[in-house]
Amino acid sequence: MAGYVQDDITPEELERQEALYGPFTDAVRDLVDATIRTLVDEEQVRRAQAEIEEITARLRKEQLDGPFGVRFGATRRGRPWGNTVVGLRNPAAPPLVIEHHPSGDGRVWSDFHLGAAYEGPPDLVHGGVAAMILDQMLGEAAGARGKPGMTARLTLSYRQGTPLGDLRSEAWVESIDGIKTIAKGHILGPDGVTVEAEGLFVMPKWARELMAHREDTPKYFE
Amino acid sequence: MAGYVQDDITPEELERQEALYGPFTDAVRDLVDATIRTLVDEEQVRRAQAEIEEITARLRKEQLDGPFGVRFGATRRGRPWGNTVVGLRNPAAPPLVIEHHPSGDGRVWSDFHLGAAYEGPPDLVHGGVAAMILDQMLGEAAGARGKPGMTARLTLSYRQGTPLGDLRSEAWVESIDGIKTIAKGHILGPDGVTVEAEGLFVMPKWARELMAHREDTPKYFE
Repeated sequence: MAGYVQDDITPEELERQEALYGPFTDAVRDLVDATIRTLVDEEQVRRAQAEIEEITARLRKEQLDGPFGVRFGATRRGRPWGNTVVGLRNPAAPPLVIEHHPSGDGRVWSDFHLGAAYEGPPDLVHGGVAAMILDQMLGEAAGARGKPGMTARLTLSYRQGTPLGDLRSEAWVESIDGIKTIAKGHILGPDGVTVEAEGLFVMPKWARELMAHREDTPKYFE
Repeated sequence: MAGYVQDDITPEELERQEALYGPFTDAVRDLVDATIRTLVDEEQVRRAQAEIEEITARLRKEQLDGPFGVRFGATRRGRPWGNTVVGLRNPAAPPLVIEHHPSGDGRVWSDFHLGAAYEGPPDLVHGGVAAMILDQMLGEAAGARGKPGMTARLTLSYRQGTPLGDLRSEAWVESIDGIKTIAKGHILGPDGVTVEAEGLFVMPKWARELMAHREDTPKYFE
């Protein structure tokens, strides 16, 4: 179990890790894209495979037992670096960098790019990827408002196909009722809103207990 | 634009490509997992990064202009090999292998494994990944019933956290009304149903026109 880990790394160590793992993960992301699109001959593909297997074996010589979890340093918010949407160390994540309105009112937004790895219908973002991004965005809005929660219900309305490329997502808190928060949001393509979402987020008991025992509230249940 | 491409490859060429790209993509998938979990030292990470960048550059010497799209061979169903859920050539896809009930009644199911790359809350599948998988499964159910469509609406109800590991998903067609199909499904973890979904799928005009002009109906709008 990875769980929520307090590793108390210093700001300097955080900076070192970001500078190391950010570009490394970007390189693997780029390889993922090239893997889908390459047209080189069979011999070249087999050679690349053998080299990649050898690199993987070296990286696995020392590794976490399981997934990354969320780790907390000495002074800053959690590091959800394995997260499939925002994870700095996850090559399968675009990754989204989500901005929070400084007022803390729950408004969040993100400008991001989705390439070949996120395809559903030809040239379009997979409808499920749009759902995945909006789940993260709406959950972030709830967290930004101080009401982090697990997704209880999520409804997506697809207005038009979302083209692969440069996109934007925005989300906000619609209403709060105790431990329940309703958030809304959308994805914007070159021709306006492509997908709209409404979600109900609920703070689970274990999270309320965890929050009661620590100063820096985990913002990433989802 | 990748689009729907008729490349008329022979069954033998299809077999050759599956045997080549399947293991190659698996190797990159394994690297993605190792990238998230590795604990090797900075020098080792930098060395791996440089090697990966070199491999990527070689793979890109000859490549598709854009995403993979869906390609059709001489005799078999489409190859959505870039698809982010089922794509044989997409290292970001688990990938799901989806079984169809032989009766063609729309019942589909899949047993699959989700590792560190699909994490949301620590040790749990990202709620958005569950949504992504169910979007694909419900769309497949509609397609298996001969009613392929684009997702118009999708509602997810989260019953409990979905643990990373071995999982199953099942989906079926609930009702059909002309070009509109309602499908339902769920994800099953070790403790039963974790997420339920209901989706409305609509066959767009361009797809109806495409289907009117070709024999082998594309089953993958989503």
